[in-house]
Amino acid sequence: MRRLRLTLEYDGSAYRGFQRQRGQPTVQETLERALAQVTQEDLRVVAAGRTDSGVHALGQVVHLDTESALDLATLRRALNAVLPEDIAVREVQEAEAGFHARFSARLRKYRYRILNAPVRSPLNRRLTAQVAQSLDVAAMQRAADQLVGDHDFASFGGRMWEGGSSRRVVYSLDVRRAGDEVIVDIAANAYLSRMVRSIVGCLISVGLGELSADDVGRILAARDRGAVRRLAPPQGLCLMEVVYTDTQLVRSKG
Amino acid sequence: MRRLRLTLEYDGSAYRGFQRQRGQPTVQETLERALAQVTQEDLRVVAAGRTDSGVHALGQVVHLDTESALDLATLRRALNAVLPEDIAVREVQEAEAGFHARFSARLRKYRYRILNAPVRSPLNRRLTAQVAQSLDVAAMQRAADQLVGDHDFASFGGRMWEGGSSRRVVYSLDVRRAGDEVIVDIAANAYLSRMVRSIVGCLISVGLGELSADDVGRILAARDRGAVRRLAPPQGLCLMEVVYTDTQLVRSKG
Repeated sequence: MRRLRLTLEYDGSAYRGFQRQRGQPTVQETLERALAQVTQEDLRVVAAGRTDSGVHALGQVVHLDTESALDLATLRRALNAVLPEDIAVREVQEAEAGFHARFSARLRKYRYRILNAPVRSPLNRRLTAQVAQSLDVAAMQRAADQLVGDHDFASFGGRMWEGGSSRRVVYSLDVRRAGDEVIVDIAANAYLSRMVRSIVGCLISVGLGELSADDVGRILAARDRGAVRRLAPPQGLCLMEVVYTDTQLVRSKG
Repeated sequence: MRRLRLTLEYDGSAYRGFQRQRGQPTVQETLERALAQVTQEDLRVVAAGRTDSGVHALGQVVHLDTESALDLATLRRALNAVLPEDIAVREVQEAEAGFHARFSARLRKYRYRILNAPVRSPLNRRLTAQVAQSLDVAAMQRAADQLVGDHDFASFGGRMWEGGSSRRVVYSLDVRRAGDEVIVDIAANAYLSRMVRSIVGCLISVGLGELSADDVGRILAARDRGAVRRLAPPQGLCLMEVVYTDTQLVRSKG
């Protein structure tokens, strides 16, 4: 038995999120079916992040335990041959001792792409969410700054994490304009359900002048999950990277 | 009656190219149906470039003559409301006197995106074509340099232009690496059918070491349309811009 670490890229458009749900197409079920085909074993994977329905990933990480003796390159090639075109295994590695895709993760980085243009974009429609009115990026950044740090993010959680705390540490939350897009990059130790889309929804409200940066501070302090009205749509969101070492943590802080 | 100039963006994946074909989904037919809905007229459009089946556009230009008195902003909004999500009208302008989308065009700029990576990319699969082996970009550029200028491109034409010449002027043909992609940008006065995909196919062969830059010069000189073996697939290709003034022409030359 050996533990493997897989890095996945997927287009979440056709899936009801990562996590298995009876009778629904999920990334987990599709990946596990491919693994069964390749290894002839009935394997379960554990993922770093349970991406929501319609959310994408460029660097999702999962681990699994297998009896397969296939070498890593062969395994990757075989999996990519049987997986559908909207899921790919970018890397297959031997996991270090004690590695756990979810519990060993130190940092999860998400990116949200807003197409900030009056006309929708056919070429980017699957990977961006459109906001037609011009966004005030400086105001959005001031609001974002209120959310960086170790806080109780209950106001930004879609539902509570099973019996756990709603405290999370946001290491960075950066808003910038790139061409006709506004990009929001967030790095946190972990997230409540729907937390990124809820934060981005709130920042969009600020960018449109409907909320001030101070309002966002008050929403955070309220710890009331009814406090955020706007949930940014899923197709703009992508899990970019999961970090397992502490070095990047320090860099992100500084 | 007034002549309008429309700039279009489209994802060509679902279409058999721009030009109307009986019984096939085309961009032209879809656009003309939307125009009929909005103006209640039976309009025909003329396009700058007849993009092939599966080829995209960021800046396709068409003109049309209409009796409609709708203002330009309303027309754009109405068209985008009825067009499917894979086609959008980015701009609607009054055409200058004598403007013709096809005959007035001085320069057509295309971009081809090659994903040069061992693993396919689910997120970019609709807009790139994958080449797994590492490409020699410097060799590709040397080969590309052989094609710049006023030449008979018969070797790179899928079929002859109706009774016309196969001479075309390529103003620039640039190959560069950007992350895990190799980008080919071409600007020419016009193109033979399939000319860009044929040129890119040839450049890929050079990048893989199957052909030399000198071979490409010989292929050009042969004026034999059987001379190019590799046709790059359509999904990597995008019509980026059509230029109607002569100023950019000079800049592209220099």
